[in-house]
Amino acid sequence: MAFYDPFRVEPDKKLSLRKRNPAETLGFEKEKALERLKQNITAIDELQTRLYAEDKQSVLLVIQAMDAAGKDSTIKAITAGLNPQGVLVHGFKAPTEEEKAHDFLWRIHQKTPQKGHIVIFNRSHYEDVLIVRVHGWVSEKSLKKRYEHINQFEQLLHAHGTKVVKIMLHISPEYQLAQFHERLEDPKKHWKFNPGDLEERKLWSQYMAAYETALLKCSTEQAPWYVVPAENKWFRTFVVSQILRDILEKMKPRFPKPTFDPTQFTADQLV
Amino acid sequence: MAFYDPFRVEPDKKLSLRKRNPAETLGFEKEKALERLKQNITAIDELQTRLYAEDKQSVLLVIQAMDAAGKDSTIKAITAGLNPQGVLVHGFKAPTEEEKAHDFLWRIHQKTPQKGHIVIFNRSHYEDVLIVRVHGWVSEKSLKKRYEHINQFEQLLHAHGTKVVKIMLHISPEYQLAQFHERLEDPKKHWKFNPGDLEERKLWSQYMAAYETALLKCSTEQAPWYVVPAENKWFRTFVVSQILRDILEKMKPRFPKPTFDPTQFTADQLV
Repeated sequence: MAFYDPFRVEPDKKLSLRKRNPAETLGFEKEKALERLKQNITAIDELQTRLYAEDKQSVLLVIQAMDAAGKDSTIKAITAGLNPQGVLVHGFKAPTEEEKAHDFLWRIHQKTPQKGHIVIFNRSHYEDVLIVRVHGWVSEKSLKKRYEHINQFEQLLHAHGTKVVKIMLHISPEYQLAQFHERLEDPKKHWKFNPGDLEERKLWSQYMAAYETALLKCSTEQAPWYVVPAENKWFRTFVVSQILRDILEKMKPRFPKPTFDPTQFTADQLV
Repeated sequence: MAFYDPFRVEPDKKLSLRKRNPAETLGFEKEKALERLKQNITAIDELQTRLYAEDKQSVLLVIQAMDAAGKDSTIKAITAGLNPQGVLVHGFKAPTEEEKAHDFLWRIHQKTPQKGHIVIFNRSHYEDVLIVRVHGWVSEKSLKKRYEHINQFEQLLHAHGTKVVKIMLHISPEYQLAQFHERLEDPKKHWKFNPGDLEERKLWSQYMAAYETALLKCSTEQAPWYVVPAENKWFRTFVVSQILRDILEKMKPRFPKPTFDPTQFTADQLV
């Protein structure tokens, strides 16, 4: 039992994002959580070194959220101090012409982790059942197929040693509005604001419906979805770091046995 | 004048690696250097955010060295806390069959930074004039051509807004030996030891000759080479962070002006 189990999406139950409190902190105190975050980073660093040395398994962490929920800053916070050679982040924007000329998983597959690596997706293939659904860019029939394709794709990754875990950073429209205000008030943050985001905002309830369907259809035993309350930065960062740490611990990565006898190299031979 | 100017390779002068002290610290004290390293990281973080927001220029930092000189740990130390979405590290190993079926810069070009990014190469196209030369895998004539190709390639990057800087972490064979011993004594480090490295070690002077030629031929105004004394971990990390910081400061990255009028969005409109 992990304390964040209530955040997991159970595919056989109902999911109402409206009923989940985006400011939830489960009674944790900020200072204690930040202390544990620090411990988690240290543990992840050690586990990541083993994962890299072992060179057999990998992790794919998918982060999805509405604008201004803190995807970037969460990713930065949980990767600070990790080895950038073994921890990679990929952001997915609107697909290019070349990407659109392929199936929707083509560009995603190219960025999945190689053995020994942790890869974090900032947005992902789930955009293809979220924004795409909200705007009606593909038919209902195609959408239904996409959930299946996604599940099969994630099973493929799992079968080849990639642990997949998916996190939605959950906020309210009021919280987003406050963030937008902040971006407009700080000249250093103007570049983060896009007037077009205000249009997307009007489709909030449609987005929530799309999230609910996608999370229910694609939260699986091997590749679960978590809805992490994200209005408290310290709490969301702590929870995400804990989820990542726990996956890594379950994988039990080990330093490989040397392919040589370390005692065979005596001081004389080492010249 | 930067304090590390003596480390720069001047193409019109001679270069003798043997005469450069790999344990040099220029009179810096460890504590002071570590304090400045910390300040540099903070400054780089701020500059990198601007670079990313500006989305016009980029940085390519090339790190080369003999085995066990500390490439990985230097890279980790100077990138700790930076945003992994804007700071990428690429390691180059022996080329694959597909890579070998192309010119030697083909795989390198694919990993050069996009606008707004800092990319660090852990080994690079310089292997194609180092290990390749030491083992005589290509003719002298081809090698000469390669220096030219490299310079032209780096000029192309420079002309498109990429600042290129190249660093050799300089150690002595005695230092390497001590590192190998450490790897053999610590089971957590066995995986880093490759008995084949002992064979390469015998070619030390050939490697140094290959480095001297490559650095002299390819240290240019726009893409200089530095030989950084690397036997003191704190010193090498501090120097590399300072070089990176100084490049970024000279680039003067700026937050872009908004394409909209931030005052047009009143509280009423933001709903």
